[in-house]
Amino acid sequence: MKLAIVGAGVVGRSVAELAAEYGHVVTAIADSTGAVVDAGGVDVGTALERKDHLGSVGETDPEAALDADYDCLVEVTPTTLGDAEPGFSHVERALRRDRHVVLANKGPVAERYDDVMALAAESDGEVRFEATVAGAIPVIATVEGLGPRHVTAARGVLNGTANFVLTRMAAEGLDYEHVLAEAQDLGVAEADPSFDVEGTDAGLKCAILANALRDGGYSLDDVDVAGITGLPTSALELAAEDGRTVRLIGEVTADGAVRVGPRLVTANDALAVTGTQNIVQLETVHAGQLNLSGPGAGGPETASAVLADVGRLPSR
Amino acid sequence: MKLAIVGAGVVGRSVAELAAEYGHVVTAIADSTGAVVDAGGVDVGTALERKDHLGSVGETDPEAALDADYDCLVEVTPTTLGDAEPGFSHVERALRRDRHVVLANKGPVAERYDDVMALAAESDGEVRFEATVAGAIPVIATVEGLGPRHVTAARGVLNGTANFVLTRMAAEGLDYEHVLAEAQDLGVAEADPSFDVEGTDAGLKCAILANALRDGGYSLDDVDVAGITGLPTSALELAAEDGRTVRLIGEVTADGAVRVGPRLVTANDALAVTGTQNIVQLETVHAGQLNLSGPGAGGPETASAVLADVGRLPSR
Repeated sequence: MKLAIVGAGVVGRSVAELAAEYGHVVTAIADSTGAVVDAGGVDVGTALERKDHLGSVGETDPEAALDADYDCLVEVTPTTLGDAEPGFSHVERALRRDRHVVLANKGPVAERYDDVMALAAESDGEVRFEATVAGAIPVIATVEGLGPRHVTAARGVLNGTANFVLTRMAAEGLDYEHVLAEAQDLGVAEADPSFDVEGTDAGLKCAILANALRDGGYSLDDVDVAGITGLPTSALELAAEDGRTVRLIGEVTADGAVRVGPRLVTANDALAVTGTQNIVQLETVHAGQLNLSGPGAGGPETASAVLADVGRLPSR
Repeated sequence: MKLAIVGAGVVGRSVAELAAEYGHVVTAIADSTGAVVDAGGVDVGTALERKDHLGSVGETDPEAALDADYDCLVEVTPTTLGDAEPGFSHVERALRRDRHVVLANKGPVAERYDDVMALAAESDGEVRFEATVAGAIPVIATVEGLGPRHVTAARGVLNGTANFVLTRMAAEGLDYEHVLAEAQDLGVAEADPSFDVEGTDAGLKCAILANALRDGGYSLDDVDVAGITGLPTSALELAAEDGRTVRLIGEVTADGAVRVGPRLVTANDALAVTGTQNIVQLETVHAGQLNLSGPGAGGPETASAVLADVGRLPSR
């Protein structure tokens, strides 16, 4: 397939670098200030090197990538809340052109799922979004295979940064601020970690899971979100005395609640994944409980999910 | 889709019972002695009740199911080794008619994968076989999504009966024969448990995994198989003293080995699933290690995998 990649951060770069290995041609790459477009196939290495040295993949207007010749738009711009712009408009433009869309940007399917699906219903293009929930882990494809009506509930560890902090605090008895600083040094936490540690990122993923399970109707506003900010080390010590630990669990319950918050889990529970790992548990009507775990973030990891989605699209 | 179900054991019955819930029509069901065929849709309840009381789903020649009007043949007859008959011939007949095939019978894809795929290449029908490995767990679909070339190795607990025996022996300090008898009482082990405890079943699943990962070339003969028959309780006790336990692990290694045998794993390792659970770990080039666990057997559980496969087929 011909791919136009909008967004050239960690995930966008990886998608561009791996596309050829999966048999695809990149016909456009855009970042926030420029683009490179070539119907015959962009020279990915040159474009990414240009970005490293000059700040942008090319000197063409970024809008040109949206008008390029492509089969599938890969939307990997940063997640935004509320109106989910500019990601939403990118999705809209591709669908109105009857092109497919694959998202790693959570905004459009977390905040405006119903709008996106209404556009998809009018389009010959399809929308897929495996990469928006738990990185490389095939959560959405598994829900699709089971049939959403046959999945009664979902829960899991959906944010690797928060999980790294909780794991280190419990293992080393260190306090929250200390571990967070360490995570920032390691590049596991961002300079402004609030999106991860306050539960917003996991909340968006829960909204997406709820939309996938219940055929839409959810946004971040519908998720009851609590984070791990300032969690006292004493809470983890108390938990450990009882053979338990604390995890930031996001869940879509059988009775319709959607929430994120720190929860006690037994230390050997499947949910007690360590470090930056993610896990999703699906409760099903006919297939019992399925556990899916693996890396929840990272460039090539998330790009794998994007390219798996591209592979699931019908040819145009 | 219109489904013809050949085989009316535990899995075949569940597929028949759940088909309508997934939007499909059952146009034929066959067991070893009879069949019921109705192009407008078989009355599944009546057919299964007839089997309970009279020993067969119907009085039509079982061959008639293979000639019926259907889009997809669901082949769920018992697994056989070597020539994989009669399953293989059922698959061949469906593909020669340009019909799709979904298998829960391991024989054709474990023992004659290359023959099956050669027939599929000549057919407008496709062959899918998610249900043959680890029941409800989406292993094959995940490999397909990642791209087989991007999965370097796979390993896991692939036989629930053997895992139940090992779990009980370790937890209760009971000996092999005692626990096996208990498993037979519970219906977890069959009257002749050799297929499970000698590693044959796990070996077939490894051959299938190897075929899926390496594009064919494997059969049970290529798998180095050891089982858990007569494993001494003392081996589990020694393992436990060292914080470890024993699991019957099937694996396809990065260097091309395919084998099944009892292995020591640490007690809190992801591979140390308990009871009849299965787990598969996939080592990937770009997405790290993925862990998929859940029920590895059971009627509705395996039927879920069959019906997920049916849902992945292109419409005819």
